[in-house]
Order: sequence, then C-alpha cells, then structure tokens
Amino acid sequence: MLSEDELTFVTSNKHKAVEVREIFRSHGARCQVHYMKTIEIQSNDIAEIAIFSSFQAYQLLGKPVFVEDAGLFVDALNGFPGPYSSYVYRTLGLETFLKLLNKRRNAFFKSVVCVYGLSRAPVIFSGVVKGRIATEPRGEGGFGYDPVFIPAGSTKTLAEMSVAEKNKWSHRAKAVEKLLRWLYKDRKTFHMR
Amino acid sequence: MLSEDELTFVTSNKHKAVEVREIFRSHGARCQVHYMKTIEIQSNDIAEIAIFSSFQAYQLLGKPVFVEDAGLFVDALNGFPGPYSSYVYRTLGLETFLKLLNKRRNAFFKSVVCVYGLSRAPVIFSGVVKGRIATEPRGEGGFGYDPVFIPAGSTKTLAEMSVAEKNKWSHRAKAVEKLLRWLYKDRKTFHMR
Repeated sequence: MLSEDELTFVTSNKHKAVEVREIFRSHGARCQVHYMKTIEIQSNDIAEIAIFSSFQAYQLLGKPVFVEDAGLFVDALNGFPGPYSSYVYRTLGLETFLKLLNKRRNAFFKSVVCVYGLSRAPVIFSGVVKGRIATEPRGEGGFGYDPVFIPAGSTKTLAEMSVAEKNKWSHRAKAVEKLLRWLYKDRKTFHMR
Repeated sequence: MLSEDELTFVTSNKHKAVEVREIFRSHGARCQVHYMKTIEIQSNDIAEIAIFSSFQAYQLLGKPVFVEDAGLFVDALNGFPGPYSSYVYRTLGLETFLKLLNKRRNAFFKSVVCVYGLSRAPVIFSGVVKGRIATEPRGEGGFGYDPVFIPAGSTKTLAEMSVAEKNKWSHRAKAVEKLLRWLYKDRKTFHMR
C-alpha cells in the first residue's frame, strides 16, 4: 500500500506548491513537493504537455509523481494565451494583455493533473473554472492572471481571495480533488489520517 | 563523402520548404525535404527548440537532417511573440497582434538552423533580420508575420517580395547560407554541381 507521502508533486512554481499542499491538507492528506523544472512541449493541449512532463519527472526521480499544467483560455481570442499563459504573462504582462480584450470577456481556466508511476499509463484529471476577465487587476493574492479573473458566481477576482477561498473556485483545486478521490476511493492506495 | 541529396530538411511548413529549396538552388545545391511534425519544446531560446526537434527527426529518420525554427521578437513587447510566434499568429491573428503595438515598432526575426547527424554534436547556424512592424498588413507573399514586417533598409514588407527577393533579406536565408558555407567550405562534404 502506497503511503501518501510517497506521491510527489513536481513543480517549479512555489504558488502552485502552496495551493496543492493546502488542497491535500484540507482533505486530511499530504504530499511531498519536489521543486524541479521539467521540459514542457509546445502543444495546444495542456494534457499532452502534462503527460510529457510527468514522464520526464518520473524518469528522473524514479518514484510516483504528479505534475500540474494550467492555462487561461479567452473565448474571444481563440483560446489565447492557453498553454503559453505563463510566457505571455512574463513578456506582455497583465496591462498589455488587457488591451487585447474588448466587450467579449468570457474566459476559463483549465488545469490538468497528470500522475505517472502508479499505473501502467499516465492518469489525467482536469478541472475548469469559467468566468470573465476584469477590466483592471484587483487583489494581491494568487499569481499570474488571478488579479484579472472573476469566477462566474463571484464578485471577487481570484487574487482577492485567500488560498483556502481560491481553492473553493479554482480549476487547480477541482483537478487535484479528482486526483484525491481517485487515490482514496477508487484505488484505496492512500490511508486517511 | 556525403552527397548533398543525403541531407534532409525536416519541416511541417510548406512555405519554409519552398524558401529553403530556393536558397539551396540559388547556390547550386539541393536538399531533400521530409514533411513531418516533430515535438517542439517550450523555451525562450529557439536554438534549444531546434536542437530538440532535430534530435527527434534524426532518431526517427536515421539519417542526417536539419530543422529550422524561427520567431519574431518585438522589442517593446519583451521579445513577444518570440518562440510562440506561430501559435500567436494562429490564435490572435495579425490584426489583434497589431493592437499590442504603439509607437515603438522595432523588431527582429531570428532563424536557427540545426543539423543533426553530421557531427558528434548538433550544429547551429543563426540568422537575424532587423526591421520594424508595419501599421497594417501589406502583400500576399511569404507567410506568418511577413505582411507586417519591413526589413531595415527596405520600404516593402517581406510579403511584398518574391521568394528570391525575400531571401536577400531574410533571417532564414542568412542561417541557411551559413549552413551551406559550412557544408561546402569548412567540411567539404558536399560537391558543387
């Protein structure tokens, strides 16, 4: 039986590590975090990117791992910035990104979690949160596009929420919760504390 | 001695194949073209992307290959769209791309050619053309950002030029000409026809 400490979250993003740890914790579980940059391929499909990265992390660490890849997909921009959200954030920044938008501001965040090393094939879980792009950045929490993303049903941006509050809405929390359900209920490989 | 027909250009872009064939032809040489999609990694460095792709193409085809990767780097946008030029072109399109620009319109195209299978290590050649972004698209030739790129010293966009004329200016031609010089002069592996 796999102990829950033996599943390692591989990422190079401290914000993601904080969120994922908090999601595990809020379900009475734990995971290890290993900070490492893996190669990300170019693809329109973030699941493909996550599969490739998780395979590489598994090969390098030699133990069961999971990675998470996410993107912001703006309807009026054909899904841009999508898989390249992080690159676009670093180069253009939020202010220039907002210039691309007019009245059509619908968008969604998608997260894909990929586990490698627990089954014969990589296992994928995804989570989506629909919402709209704010006209200007608000809030100091979160990271990336959080200050300009307002989930449908909320009046706050994701950056105006605490980590615990963001996890009630976020794409990442939805994907990680599917992973937890799979680990505990379907596979019964983890013991609850 | 390697015959020139044994060096294969691997690409999935017909426009690139046309240009590269014309550059070889204008120097009295030939190359094979093999149409194939290779995996492209995410990187700020297009050389890294080309090395990875050329390695993959060499492994799959089992003979000496070269690939070419290129990007448009806009100074005022911190190099955006850079390595993701093709994705940004497909999702945003030229019109939306132009909205990102104001008075500062300096930019450069960079091309990297990577040869795999002729030496122990991959060999890289690069070419750059500096210029500026036009205020609106002009011309029907070329592909991608050619209708909005005016090389320094030209009044035409790259899309207003014939293939032969574009090759007098282009980043791609500069990189491929370095490859040809290396093949003929430095390595003497090719015979001139």
